[in-house]
Amino acid sequence: MHQLQAPGRAGRAMAEWAKQLAGIKGVVLDISGVLYDGGGEGGGVPIPGSIDAVGKIKASGLKLRFCTNETQATRGKFVAKLQRLGFNILVNEVTAPAPAACRILKERNLRPHLLVHDDLVPEFDQLDKANPNCVVIGDAADNFSYKNLNEAFRVLIGLENPILISLGRGRYYKETDGLKLDVGVYMKALEYACDVQAEVVGKPAKMFFQSALAEMQVEPQQAIMIGDDIVNDVGGAQQCGMRALQVRTGKYRPCDEQHPEVKADGYVNNLAEAVDIIVKQLHK
Amino acid sequence: MHQLQAPGRAGRAMAEWAKQLAGIKGVVLDISGVLYDGGGEGGGVPIPGSIDAVGKIKASGLKLRFCTNETQATRGKFVAKLQRLGFNILVNEVTAPAPAACRILKERNLRPHLLVHDDLVPEFDQLDKANPNCVVIGDAADNFSYKNLNEAFRVLIGLENPILISLGRGRYYKETDGLKLDVGVYMKALEYACDVQAEVVGKPAKMFFQSALAEMQVEPQQAIMIGDDIVNDVGGAQQCGMRALQVRTGKYRPCDEQHPEVKADGYVNNLAEAVDIIVKQLHK
Repeated sequence: MHQLQAPGRAGRAMAEWAKQLAGIKGVVLDISGVLYDGGGEGGGVPIPGSIDAVGKIKASGLKLRFCTNETQATRGKFVAKLQRLGFNILVNEVTAPAPAACRILKERNLRPHLLVHDDLVPEFDQLDKANPNCVVIGDAADNFSYKNLNEAFRVLIGLENPILISLGRGRYYKETDGLKLDVGVYMKALEYACDVQAEVVGKPAKMFFQSALAEMQVEPQQAIMIGDDIVNDVGGAQQCGMRALQVRTGKYRPCDEQHPEVKADGYVNNLAEAVDIIVKQLHK
Repeated sequence: MHQLQAPGRAGRAMAEWAKQLAGIKGVVLDISGVLYDGGGEGGGVPIPGSIDAVGKIKASGLKLRFCTNETQATRGKFVAKLQRLGFNILVNEVTAPAPAACRILKERNLRPHLLVHDDLVPEFDQLDKANPNCVVIGDAADNFSYKNLNEAFRVLIGLENPILISLGRGRYYKETDGLKLDVGVYMKALEYACDVQAEVVGKPAKMFFQSALAEMQVEPQQAIMIGDDIVNDVGGAQQCGMRALQVRTGKYRPCDEQHPEVKADGYVNNLAEAVDIIVKQLHK
């Protein structure tokens, strides 16, 4: 049913949002589920057409920023993987939660207890981690053992003023072998255990989108976000004043188009389709 | 500070709640943190005075029921451990979540995917578990790995009508080597991941206390609950119409006495103190 209806619906939606692209100067791209699907042997596979699509944005004169909640590796290692997959992407084009969290930790003299992926730990090398006064969680994947979550819990509940910083608040993401629980689920677990509210660094936090826009020197109303997560990408960007498209790749599910709270400015089958339309409108 | 003030405060509180014991016919006891502290080599250590206290209740003519959220072992195995520790306790005196959940699953033709402690699995032996149409979680402890939680998540999100049954909703409990995360934390994690609301079997669910009272053939206003958990023991019992005391053992923390929502009918240093006062009032 969905397969049959999709092209017609896409056609209608396309027409609508494409008309409202005047004044767009910058594109913000989510990475996982938009550029590639993570997981498996080589660390993931590109989504068809997305390597060219990134090239087309760069050639168009539009400003481009990648905005990810990826926290399974340092930004450098993550970008190197994407380059190996064939993407034209540089470390300084990427806004990611860990470097943003590091700045915040330094500013506030916080010493983190880390519950993150082993490969993310080097991002926090410059910080004092002795006698921790906060807990930072990222997408720790298999490091989310009972033992490790319990350890983070004990640090947090032992603090007079418990501070929990969560690198994103996603529910799950899609890898080549299926859906995987994301950091938000464990954030909720610790919030409940300690009766605290986490501070989120990453999408959908407004500050996170704002820092991506500042890097591009583009105003929110001049920017369009393209992501596969209806809440964290689309909803987050819209709350920041940006327009936002949802791609029907990655973790997209048909019911997202009837989300009770968030309505994308447009839905597209994939990044390639979105970029073709955006670039075409530039030259009108 | 707390050590010095406690006797005085206990003395005042004692006077108040002890005056209101007229008509009490039955006592409901939480087990972990009231009778014993779990964990370590022998599976735990009795809290001083509690073995005698159970004997005193039984000798007094008061009806007695044990009401636990323990789900790390079958009821039989759990009771055998308590007997070895020296407690006068029988399997049919214990209300526990797993047998209650089994009855519900059978009534509703539910086939569970289990995320529980290995030692609890035999409680569900009689149930069809092929092609699951619900998820049941208990205090799985080390079985709460990322892999296992992800598996439960995938079952749940794949169901048209996702049903999550949680054996209790506790945040944490205390073992001899420290605080441990309880099932409620993982319940919250799955609730968030799948945007569902769990059905709780166990304290503080009203139905669970009601079934304990039915077993004793005692009305709520004739019963007194004694527990270490201000929300699940004290709050739950009070919502069911019972009186409830909090012991200052187990997971008790001084701030519980200023809990924003729940106020115990009385606070006692331990089970022995509570039982002495209750039994003394019986003979007035």
